Amino acid sequence: MDHFILTHTSNAARAGELYTSHGTVPTPVFLPVGSQATVKTLTSDDLQDIGSKMILSNTYHLYLRPGIDTIKELGGLHKFMNWKGAILTDSGGYQVFSLAPLRQVNEEGVVFRSHIDGSQHFLTPELAIEYQETLGSDVMMVLDECPAHDDTPDKVAQAMQRTHRWASRCLASFHNNNQALYAIVQGGIIPELRKQSSEYLTSLDFTGYAIGGLSLGEPKEVMYAVTQQTAQMLPPNKPRYLMGVGSPEDIVEGVAAGIDIFDCALPTRVARNGALFTWQGRKNIRNASYSRMDMPLMSDCRCYTCRNYSAAYLHHLFNAGELLAYRLATLHNLTFMKDLMDRIRTAILNNNYAWFREEFKKTYQPTNEAIRLIQKQKWLNTRRSSEQID
Amino acid sequence: MDHFILTHTSNAARAGELYTSHGTVPTPVFLPVGSQATVKTLTSDDLQDIGSKMILSNTYHLYLRPGIDTIKELGGLHKFMNWKGAILTDSGGYQVFSLAPLRQVNEEGVVFRSHIDGSQHFLTPELAIEYQETLGSDVMMVLDECPAHDDTPDKVAQAMQRTHRWASRCLASFHNNNQALYAIVQGGIIPELRKQSSEYLTSLDFTGYAIGGLSLGEPKEVMYAVTQQTAQMLPPNKPRYLMGVGSPEDIVEGVAAGIDIFDCALPTRVARNGALFTWQGRKNIRNASYSRMDMPLMSDCRCYTCRNYSAAYLHHLFNAGELLAYRLATLHNLTFMKDLMDRIRTAILNNNYAWFREEFKKTYQPTNEAIRLIQKQKWLNTRRSSEQID
Repeated sequence: MDHFILTHTSNAARAGELYTSHGTVPTPVFLPVGSQATVKTLTSDDLQDIGSKMILSNTYHLYLRPGIDTIKELGGLHKFMNWKGAILTDSGGYQVFSLAPLRQVNEEGVVFRSHIDGSQHFLTPELAIEYQETLGSDVMMVLDECPAHDDTPDKVAQAMQRTHRWASRCLASFHNNNQALYAIVQGGIIPELRKQSSEYLTSLDFTGYAIGGLSLGEPKEVMYAVTQQTAQMLPPNKPRYLMGVGSPEDIVEGVAAGIDIFDCALPTRVARNGALFTWQGRKNIRNASYSRMDMPLMSDCRCYTCRNYSAAYLHHLFNAGELLAYRLATLHNLTFMKDLMDRIRTAILNNNYAWFREEFKKTYQPTNEAIRLIQKQKWLNTRRSSEQID
Repeated sequence: MDHFILTHTSNAARAGELYTSHGTVPTPVFLPVGSQATVKTLTSDDLQDIGSKMILSNTYHLYLRPGIDTIKELGGLHKFMNWKGAILTDSGGYQVFSLAPLRQVNEEGVVFRSHIDGSQHFLTPELAIEYQETLGSDVMMVLDECPAHDDTPDKVAQAMQRTHRWASRCLASFHNNNQALYAIVQGGIIPELRKQSSEYLTSLDFTGYAIGGLSLGEPKEVMYAVTQQTAQMLPPNKPRYLMGVGSPEDIVEGVAAGIDIFDCALPTRVARNGALFTWQGRKNIRNASYSRMDMPLMSDCRCYTCRNYSAAYLHHLFNAGELLAYRLATLHNLTFMKDLMDRIRTAILNNNYAWFREEFKKTYQPTNEAIRLIQKQKWLNTRRSSEQID
């Protein structure tokens, strides 16, 4: 059975379906992030109520805690976290290169220290596949080497070439038992490298293709341009996944560039800071203007939070540091993301995605770009030392 | 309509029903604590699923944040927190005397500083009633003066006498619009004072009677003795409420002494530390022995957590510092408390409460008393400066 069927296009935008052992996933799709086998604050039932069909989890985090063997013994990742939908696991490449201290890369693999206890570990392309096969995720990712967004072109090229060799090794050790394996196109923000990477990886028979190495602190316009350029070099009959992206406005642009799958911790992370999505942009519920607002934040919102609680109550919970605040805000933001994806898909199926995109941009006020870049850098700098891993 | 009907007794143990504008509450009942208009980590639906009929909230906390006027403007406490069941509000007396720094008591009332921002406030018996009437709680408490458990007999006696005068003033300003007003018996651990306090307060027509000033660091045996002595001096046709108690073993003893209502933050607070109730005692889910336990912590438990997740998963969530851990543990402990109260009530109705109590004590292993007293003191000392207010 095919893993992906492209059912409709509207210019470059695509609607399709992913088929997995844990259900069919309509695309474009946004994957909530559950790095440690939990989408922060939510149960599996909460995700099901939101309408999520697929989530992301992370081999690096699960390997360190509770351990791949433990999850194997407990019946695999789906059973462990009681999630009946589909799961995509990242290989751990990005985390090893961004989160683990003191890593040493060689051709065989990467030696790294745990960000939790400093213990030393070794990850290879073959092990990344073995771990993900053991976890039983529906979509696995190759192990890649992720350069920083400001690395020299030489370093970016070397990381890309290593990513290619490692991708071949991942494919060679892949058993294809009801699991898909996606390659990751690297090449930084250098068009010629992105072209080389796309050409090399699409010459191999991966189930799908991801665009990695973006949303790492580069300006949005650069990210959009690289995404567009890379997406059009990928085969139309295979799913395209833009890793670690993004905000509502990024997703609207990504879909226009022909992306099918997105994941990002932003909607859940900013929720815990009190930033809630609306069709006009992010609103900070901590703002005093909500302190006596008897209506929900979005009166036409289907989410659990807006159906049950006023903006004033949510404001109070955040103001008082109450744990319920984080769950209610997360429920809202993930419902918003699901509804955004549903509207996007409907627009594609109705052949009016270009119009939808224009209308969205007219009303949705993105976070100021200068502030965003500062916040992003701050988060990248602090996440190593904190529990704020996703 | 009567507020309370005593339907059955089994020796001193009592089964009855509380009637409120927000439903009938079978007694004995345990009230989950939601000081800041939220039972930490749970929604109102969660509480309803557990089977809770009545919760406790707190005038002191709500007065400071979000403010009584704000809750009034938002339609009262029930509407604010979207809770359709009954609410008992404490007057704030205990919090002013245990939590607020720099308080000054005079006959008119008490001047205190907010533990949040140091701002100065004045609370009187009349204001305590006015605030609770504005909140719209189903059961209100008088403003009392709470001595520390190691205060001198003179100070305890003076606080008791002031509590009596304030109780009369509360009663005089009480409008009795579908709300009940309970007096609070004080007198520390001195039998003669408890006798005086019971006699004085029961000479006035309160809707119910609470026993205050216990579970403040005194040994359990002392608390049990004072409870038993005081309870038997209270009128049989009115509800009896043992404030701030307690653990499962405390409740089993309190019921034997003739108590109808309990509240305590312990089940929710220890849940957030990973201590989960079972019929054998508290188990610490962080213990390594749970790391690969594929079964729920209690396989016959009806709670959401045990029905959906293994002990190993819960262990992992605590180990990884994941927020979902706190909610799942809270759901378990409050379901346990509800089931305990249901078993207690059934035993009373079946005239075999004495047997139930013996069987419970045979299997339930309480926390070591010496460790408990140290933990309690530590908590009492730290709560002023932290968010750990309940």
